[in-house]
Amino acid sequence: MTDPRNPAPTVDIIVELVDRRDRPIVLVERRFPPHGWALPGGFVDYGEAVETAARRESREEICLDVDLIEQFQVYSDPQRDARKHTLSVVFLAAATGTPRAADDAKAIAICPVWELPRPLCFDHARILHDYRRYRDYGIRPHLSFP
Amino acid sequence: MTDPRNPAPTVDIIVELVDRRDRPIVLVERRFPPHGWALPGGFVDYGEAVETAARRESREEICLDVDLIEQFQVYSDPQRDARKHTLSVVFLAAATGTPRAADDAKAIAICPVWELPRPLCFDHARILHDYRRYRDYGIRPHLSFP
Repeated sequence: MTDPRNPAPTVDIIVELVDRRDRPIVLVERRFPPHGWALPGGFVDYGEAVETAARRESREEICLDVDLIEQFQVYSDPQRDARKHTLSVVFLAAATGTPRAADDAKAIAICPVWELPRPLCFDHARILHDYRRYRDYGIRPHLSFP
Repeated sequence: MTDPRNPAPTVDIIVELVDRRDRPIVLVERRFPPHGWALPGGFVDYGEAVETAARRESREEICLDVDLIEQFQVYSDPQRDARKHTLSVVFLAAATGTPRAADDAKAIAICPVWELPRPLCFDHARILHDYRRYRDYGIRPHLSFP
């Protein structure tokens, strides 16, 4: 019944720190390759809803209990991760307090949306570009037609 | 690199026939168990974007070239399919012309949204309930917290 010929589902979470001016977001510096900065996130476990995975990964990677606001968009371009085909369900979430790096995160950055660290891994530059259009102008991402 | 311990990603498509009064939607009677009515859809292939899978499944199952309007919502309750854990990326799409049953579809129903066939398989009754709230009132689905 298991078919390895499907992309692996993941979640990524855009966490806004809502008790700070300009609602900065949290990025993590990856401990493992590909090195660089990324949204907190990870694989969805079998038997786990994507919402549960998003809250678990936020706790494990940046030590924050997040309040999920909405599903933002699914990103599934086969080239988005060079290692294997994954699809990511991206969530918007709100949190308060101070994130700490844990698990696969080597360091944390608390970033205003106009000043993001580089390099950004995977398709996270595209996701964050789409997020800014949505946050600033209310425009949802285009569908991808690779 | 393949990890069978993730849910398998699928797509389902809510296809509105936009050249008919009241934009009815297309449901298919399943050829294989679980028997009953369902949205057209199926598994996402490795190397395939979810948008590509949605258009492919629409062609294969109901013989229509659809115009994807938007990603509606991801449904991932571990209980949504009794056979194994799947998650579904549900799309809204528009099409014209006459659908025909093919592939895994035994029959087709063209349904106004207030008159759906029964039984509906999987969590498709819930998806279609959420769809009506969105179509009629602009209210997006709640996140699931199983």
